[in-house]
Amino acid sequence: MSEFPTGSVWLVGAGPGDPDLLTRKAERLIGKATVIFYDALVGPDVLGFASSGARLVHVGKRAGRHSKDQKTIDSLIVEAALSGERVIRLKGGDPAIFGRVTEELEACRHAGVHVQICPGITAASAAAASLGASLTLRGMARKLTFVTAHARVGEALDLDWDRLSDPDATLAIYMGKSAAGEIASRLIEAGMPGDMPAALVENASLPDERTFVTRLDLLPISAMTALGDGPAIILVGHAVSGNAAPATARAVAGRCCASEVTSAP
Amino acid sequence: MSEFPTGSVWLVGAGPGDPDLLTRKAERLIGKATVIFYDALVGPDVLGFASSGARLVHVGKRAGRHSKDQKTIDSLIVEAALSGERVIRLKGGDPAIFGRVTEELEACRHAGVHVQICPGITAASAAAASLGASLTLRGMARKLTFVTAHARVGEALDLDWDRLSDPDATLAIYMGKSAAGEIASRLIEAGMPGDMPAALVENASLPDERTFVTRLDLLPISAMTALGDGPAIILVGHAVSGNAAPATARAVAGRCCASEVTSAP
Repeated sequence: MSEFPTGSVWLVGAGPGDPDLLTRKAERLIGKATVIFYDALVGPDVLGFASSGARLVHVGKRAGRHSKDQKTIDSLIVEAALSGERVIRLKGGDPAIFGRVTEELEACRHAGVHVQICPGITAASAAAASLGASLTLRGMARKLTFVTAHARVGEALDLDWDRLSDPDATLAIYMGKSAAGEIASRLIEAGMPGDMPAALVENASLPDERTFVTRLDLLPISAMTALGDGPAIILVGHAVSGNAAPATARAVAGRCCASEVTSAP
Repeated sequence: MSEFPTGSVWLVGAGPGDPDLLTRKAERLIGKATVIFYDALVGPDVLGFASSGARLVHVGKRAGRHSKDQKTIDSLIVEAALSGERVIRLKGGDPAIFGRVTEELEACRHAGVHVQICPGITAASAAAASLGASLTLRGMARKLTFVTAHARVGEALDLDWDRLSDPDATLAIYMGKSAAGEIASRLIEAGMPGDMPAALVENASLPDERTFVTRLDLLPISAMTALGDGPAIILVGHAVSGNAAPATARAVAGRCCASEVTSAP
């Protein structure tokens, strides 16, 4: 069987945005698709690998703005496959990490449609690379936890702050920019030291990437400074400071309190 | 400044092994390097992207068999950069996740050597793709934790089992095959249900990949069946069963108790 037969679906990770961080496999699959259903968080240059005849369908969801609901997306994917297309569902990051692929996998399987996953670089990996930092440290940060701070507007975050306030772990919080104040105060209430190193990376890997290296109690100030509309990831833990110096030579755009603000050139 | 000037170092993630899961950026950097220091866990086909004139230096570490110690590796990298080479330190998976890059970053910075990180697909993402599963589920598994079960021979695992036994999270345990019995019994003692879905993926993404889908109390049996010498990752949590059917059409090699054993063709 060919890698991408007609009538089948690939759930493909587009990575953090930089088309260079796409896998070789994802690039090849994107070039073979006849239709691509893509998210708002897919970097625009990634779509440039599609063949000229492919249909590109935006089904993006962003916080508070759902352009298509999940059931509609499921139906679009399944119908396209059943009509004989080579279907890609293209998602920012890695489909398996906060990519909500379960419904799409089940919809395809229920309809007898062959579905596979092509992994992608998740935002935490891209953010760490941009910071020139590890997410784990021998001895001090041997555990890495990912959570999403995506909550409905007006609702408090329903996270287990006691378990998350582990000083021997690194915590990566996806979609956390608007909740940075609540995240910092809840973690500190649960026992995490206020001077624990923290970083915020907005638009990781993209030309307008901004990195902020600070400490947990000052994180809300960094988040307020990150005024862009792009996605952001928050990292908390000793690993963030263990190698806090940015690896790439970026201009220091400004400093606020103990925070270090760097922008891509 | 060029992407890869002489006298500089890139710490590059080789991904889980399949050369197709290398990023486009990693492929390009590997082709430009004059010397590549690579780990045992780097897929052999990945090295095929090196230029014909590049030196390939094995500095691999495997459990219990350290071919070069960390300080020696740090020195080799720094000396090669200072002598004007384009140096790659190539690591399996993502350098920031259990890749022990901190020492190498610090050694380079201490010597004034420009060092950057190129992220890679981490084993958990590759394993989830092979299983056709998500690592997170809306509502049921909104947290994902990575730990490494790498311990010195004869030493017990020093992990916080109470925090790890969270039924609302997915737990990914790197290098956990030999400790599968201890992992299962400690998690169950700490309150994780014995029938919690669990999976073991050996050699994720490689031609000799094997996937085992089982439950936590039967995980040690699957681990004993996984006789290969390759690296394995263990996944525990509801997400593993939510989509347990393997996405790719693989031959079912055998069944043992409630375990499902599948091998790549």
